[in-house]
Amino acid sequence: MSKRLNTLDLQDIKITDPIFGSYLKLVAEKMIPYQWDILNDRVKDAIPTHCIENFRIAAGEIKGERKGVVFQDSDLYKWIEAAAYCIWNGSDNRFEQTIDEVISLIGRAQQEDGYINTYYTVSEPEKRWTNLVEGHELYCSGHLIEAAVAYYYATGKTNLLEIARKNADLICEVFGKGENRINGYPGHQEIEIALIKLYRVTGERRYLDTARYFIEERGNHPNYFINEIKKRGGYEFFPELADYDLKYSQSHIRPVEQRTAEGHAVRAMYMYSAMVDLAIEYEDEEMLEACQALWNNITKFRMYITGSVGSSGFLERFTTDYDLPSNTNYSETCASIGLMMFGQRMNAATRNAEYYNTVEKALYNTVLSSISITGDRYFYVNPLEVVPRFCTDHTYMKHVKPVRQRWFGVACCPPNVSRTLSSLGQYIYAKDKDRLYINLFISSTAKVKFDKTEMSLSLESALMQEGKIILKVNCSSPEKITINVRIPGYSGQIKATRDGHRVEIDEDNGYACFSGPWDGFHTIEIDFDVKPRWVSANERVSANVGKIALMKGPCVYCLEEKDNGDNLAAIYASVNSTLEENITEDELFGKFPVIEYYGTRLLNEGIEDGELYGKPVFREKQVRLKAIPYCLWGNRGEGEMIVWQKARL
Amino acid sequence: MSKRLNTLDLQDIKITDPIFGSYLKLVAEKMIPYQWDILNDRVKDAIPTHCIENFRIAAGEIKGERKGVVFQDSDLYKWIEAAAYCIWNGSDNRFEQTIDEVISLIGRAQQEDGYINTYYTVSEPEKRWTNLVEGHELYCSGHLIEAAVAYYYATGKTNLLEIARKNADLICEVFGKGENRINGYPGHQEIEIALIKLYRVTGERRYLDTARYFIEERGNHPNYFINEIKKRGGYEFFPELADYDLKYSQSHIRPVEQRTAEGHAVRAMYMYSAMVDLAIEYEDEEMLEACQALWNNITKFRMYITGSVGSSGFLERFTTDYDLPSNTNYSETCASIGLMMFGQRMNAATRNAEYYNTVEKALYNTVLSSISITGDRYFYVNPLEVVPRFCTDHTYMKHVKPVRQRWFGVACCPPNVSRTLSSLGQYIYAKDKDRLYINLFISSTAKVKFDKTEMSLSLESALMQEGKIILKVNCSSPEKITINVRIPGYSGQIKATRDGHRVEIDEDNGYACFSGPWDGFHTIEIDFDVKPRWVSANERVSANVGKIALMKGPCVYCLEEKDNGDNLAAIYASVNSTLEENITEDELFGKFPVIEYYGTRLLNEGIEDGELYGKPVFREKQVRLKAIPYCLWGNRGEGEMIVWQKARL
Repeated sequence: MSKRLNTLDLQDIKITDPIFGSYLKLVAEKMIPYQWDILNDRVKDAIPTHCIENFRIAAGEIKGERKGVVFQDSDLYKWIEAAAYCIWNGSDNRFEQTIDEVISLIGRAQQEDGYINTYYTVSEPEKRWTNLVEGHELYCSGHLIEAAVAYYYATGKTNLLEIARKNADLICEVFGKGENRINGYPGHQEIEIALIKLYRVTGERRYLDTARYFIEERGNHPNYFINEIKKRGGYEFFPELADYDLKYSQSHIRPVEQRTAEGHAVRAMYMYSAMVDLAIEYEDEEMLEACQALWNNITKFRMYITGSVGSSGFLERFTTDYDLPSNTNYSETCASIGLMMFGQRMNAATRNAEYYNTVEKALYNTVLSSISITGDRYFYVNPLEVVPRFCTDHTYMKHVKPVRQRWFGVACCPPNVSRTLSSLGQYIYAKDKDRLYINLFISSTAKVKFDKTEMSLSLESALMQEGKIILKVNCSSPEKITINVRIPGYSGQIKATRDGHRVEIDEDNGYACFSGPWDGFHTIEIDFDVKPRWVSANERVSANVGKIALMKGPCVYCLEEKDNGDNLAAIYASVNSTLEENITEDELFGKFPVIEYYGTRLLNEGIEDGELYGKPVFREKQVRLKAIPYCLWGNRGEGEMIVWQKARL
Repeated sequence: MSKRLNTLDLQDIKITDPIFGSYLKLVAEKMIPYQWDILNDRVKDAIPTHCIENFRIAAGEIKGERKGVVFQDSDLYKWIEAAAYCIWNGSDNRFEQTIDEVISLIGRAQQEDGYINTYYTVSEPEKRWTNLVEGHELYCSGHLIEAAVAYYYATGKTNLLEIARKNADLICEVFGKGENRINGYPGHQEIEIALIKLYRVTGERRYLDTARYFIEERGNHPNYFINEIKKRGGYEFFPELADYDLKYSQSHIRPVEQRTAEGHAVRAMYMYSAMVDLAIEYEDEEMLEACQALWNNITKFRMYITGSVGSSGFLERFTTDYDLPSNTNYSETCASIGLMMFGQRMNAATRNAEYYNTVEKALYNTVLSSISITGDRYFYVNPLEVVPRFCTDHTYMKHVKPVRQRWFGVACCPPNVSRTLSSLGQYIYAKDKDRLYINLFISSTAKVKFDKTEMSLSLESALMQEGKIILKVNCSSPEKITINVRIPGYSGQIKATRDGHRVEIDEDNGYACFSGPWDGFHTIEIDFDVKPRWVSANERVSANVGKIALMKGPCVYCLEEKDNGDNLAAIYASVNSTLEENITEDELFGKFPVIEYYGTRLLNEGIEDGELYGKPVFREKQVRLKAIPYCLWGNRGEGEMIVWQKARL
């Protein structure tokens, strides 16, 4: 196994893309300030988080009861991580002083020995590390470490890194094999990824080894969690976990033996991501094989067309192959972020472009959909079909919200989206010793440093319009650098020119490879086929039999009530319809084409007025339909939405 | 308002019907003995009920902890009621001695003052009547009273009636307006129906008045339940009821003001049934108007084609208009029994035949479907679509069982089915002063006593075959008796002969009326149109848009995997297909025709092997389909089942 691909330094990437540029602006200018207000409980009508307050209480600076969910601290850490990326990527550094202040607060809330967790410090100090299943201490530490690493990269400051290391050192000491150590592992995976990042930034091997320990110990028998629950006599925080099922936390068998994606989707994604990292670091082929099998199980059996996972709102988890209902699913935003992380790492381990088809799908659909275009409303659950009147507290759709929410009692998603978007450059580019990888077609400029060469690059993408990308390279290279441009799975034929001359595509592992040496300015133009297309699902997906969904490039399209009337279940579309793309000046859709076509609406004239059942006397009425990108749904008030349309056979 | 219709004495009715006769035999010979064993915890592998044991403990005859759900006593009462009907209808009296013995046990478990409830007597005597929301004391008393009335009718014995009256007297004393009385009402309605029955058998007015009190007090503000929950500080038995929603127990507004069916479906049905009884007894037009509105809301907006209700497995409740998902619904057997009770009473109040269209639908589909043809396996939840591999503990379908179960922790349904089937005669016939009503077409003989006349009647029905019924009347009548035969809603044209001569149909309120005087033997033959027919749903039912279901008479048909292969979601049917009815010698289907026709199965050849998404390249393959009555599904092992088939437009 070769060494992993490296990401680029975020400060060397400038995102200029009209679509993602505006989302990044939203993150820096709206989400980060808004979420800071949220953490400080200054937003009217939003559920109080008590987040900063909890740290003050833990620091002994104010008195009061520590409130909020047990893992509330992680929201602050994720916010710092996102704000750090904004500094690092150059989009906004207004919060640097605020961050330094809050880091100081975190430091004051940290205990002498490095322990830090506002819940256990304030509310139940004697119960530290006794409830790994539910307590989320290691989960919170993971997010602290990730934030610290990000802030160090962004600013060079070690203030948070020192706090995080002190905490990590304690964890490495407390957990592990051997006497007087806790032979357990986290109920919610996250610490593993973080410790690997910490190892990479510090070079300190024990962080990596502890990450490995957590993955290798998991799922061993007798099971740590079962013993812990028995000892405690039940659940403290999450009674819904009663009858604890080890699959829920992927601790039913050893991770390296796992072949199907099981349990809570976010936990699963974070674990699989760590598994890839470990496979790379320890050159562990067996572990990589497990990761590949898990990836296949997800993408070939258990993933929505929108790149989301977790078919069941019941415990937010994976269910079974081909179980992909459109209106009762969970499809948590964080799980799609986790899928991006997993895919990025698989690509880094294998250099196979294919993984990015899924990363891109998750990004353009579920992740973008999770925030409003105003940046202050969020989806936690991402359904593919919504009839608002059926989403009541009394139905199975009660977790499905027909409009984005201000905030959530459990608010993992919004700050997770912020940190993902603000570090997006690390998903676009990657590099090897002598090779640059372009994985996403998001307009940007980049400076890429190789051993002896610096390459300047400008990527101009019209992916969501005509599918053309233009790459301008400036490099005077003694090294033979190759530029690998991902060939997206949705593109049919692709065409390329180099400095105006048509070139044959030299394909390798899903990439079109353009070899150097590069001397001065060069231009590569690539045309992908991104005509709108109809997609269908494997016929085993019973929810989607005889249905079709419209896509363009990585974007899934949907129909909204606003444009197409209500009762969207009565809409039929034909794969033979002429699809008309329109770019409008509209604020909402300006950067994405909308797609219009003729379809039919089924009327049933056999039902007598006001009756429920009657003769089927179907009549089809031609209707002009307008599909919009799924990522933009729900920005124009409450209404129905549907991705999968019935196919007129 | 005229006085209500009367039911007939069960001992005067003999059911000779090949379909229902065998179900009745099943009840008497299999279900009653099986359920007795269940109540005594003698069935291997079935969840122990502790039912008889609890009474022994309450009677102080054995020591131990009282176990099982808080309303476990009601299972015994419902069993007695069913067994009493078996005695009354003449099908089996083997259990009479056993019943007398168990009545004696119940008597010994009754407290001095008439109170009887094994949970509160044994486990929490000081908490009597303090938890009306969850405690089910009045619910259990209701079933005790219903059993007592049934046993009295069946045997003339007053042993259980005395126990029940003593208990009812206590309830009448304890509950009501005024000082030193509990101004509350039951969390689960049932006592109201029972007290009305007790009034009818004893003539004791205060039972009726207390029933009325319970209905009239319900929903008043300040709300009794809210106060009770506050006082107690939460839930004792059912934490899932947290954030108590008054609609759940139909106590959000006064019943007489209710216009939409809300909350827990069984509670609702029992309450509506009592409301009709009270409307009749008190000649309360306003109450009857409420009942009519509720009936309309159910049957025109919230009822499945199978005559089941309760769209949501979440708290087993009604949701909202047109929310009728086929695979996540609850559709509890008991709720359909309640719908039969409600419809029977609406018919008794209005003499309108229309209500029986729904009663018949609930009976032939959901109620019959709930028991296996062997009589010892039961459905509690009655889905209209099942894919067994999606019914896991990790999905929203976890309440949906793909095969009938031996017994349930909460086992209200099986004994409820027994008591309904064993009292079926009371649904077939009803009488007025000078009129006989035939509401269901179930072969039977009956002796009907009018003031001065006794009429002997034989009803021979081939409803589920060619739709013919033959009525043989023997009567020498000084009174002018009219025979009203219900014209079923599904029949198109009907034809009738009287003593071989074609007669015009004299229609009144949905009945074909055949007037006397009757002199000696007469024969009426009626032909209904029961050709198989396709039915569709109102297009607002988004789950069923573009789908069709096959019916014959009152019977809904379904497709099973056993006959039609798996992945039934891929089946398309056409309303123009030729439907072929076949009567087989098969033990399972011998009494119902199966229906065969050509349909298509959609194949998607655009998906590459093992992939989840791909091009839609649909191909239709002609397939011969075999539909069986919904009430017989799941009798041949685990497999898929579907009622609503996609329509080939």
